Amino acid sequence: MELLISYDVETATRDGQRRLRRVAKICEAYGHRVQKSVFEVVCRPQDWVLMKHRLAEVINSERDSIRVYHLDRGSFSRAEHMGASRLAPHESPLVY
Amino acid sequence: MELLISYDVETATRDGQRRLRRVAKICEAYGHRVQKSVFEVVCRPQDWVLMKHRLAEVINSERDSIRVYHLDRGSFSRAEHMGASRLAPHESPLVY
Repeated sequence: MELLISYDVETATRDGQRRLRRVAKICEAYGHRVQKSVFEVVCRPQDWVLMKHRLAEVINSERDSIRVYHLDRGSFSRAEHMGASRLAPHESPLVY
Repeated sequence: MELLISYDVETATRDGQRRLRRVAKICEAYGHRVQKSVFEVVCRPQDWVLMKHRLAEVINSERDSIRVYHLDRGSFSRAEHMGASRLAPHESPLVY
């Protein structure tokens, strides 16, 4: 599975800032941060089930939003990059 | 074409803030803002050629980054939404 995950977490409150850090931490455990609030995740379906559960536990469902796009295999490598944007190193293993 | 466009534009300077506004304005002319710096664009290939040219003219290629993911038709409607995230109204025409 190739998942593109983007999120907007409300940061006006301390609790929102805490949620933002926790959402980012969960995403970092499964994929590569490619922009401030955008992650590329290559994982197995069962990983996504677990990840989704963990994200749902953290976010405030009225104030925060997460979008998850299911992309075809190879979509990340076919993405276009403008400016300082770079390809994410999906071949190298994630360091835990 | 379904394009998912996400960008990080450096906002520490006044010029960066001006570039951010111009990038957002270009994206708004072609698609729907779905998160702070994420747009869903449904357009013809020739529109993307023009849009890309306009974006390239605005950004600072060392400080700003734009990622463009080419998605299959229907990917936007199949996206998963968590929290306050909603489907973008691609059926209704863009208001210029």
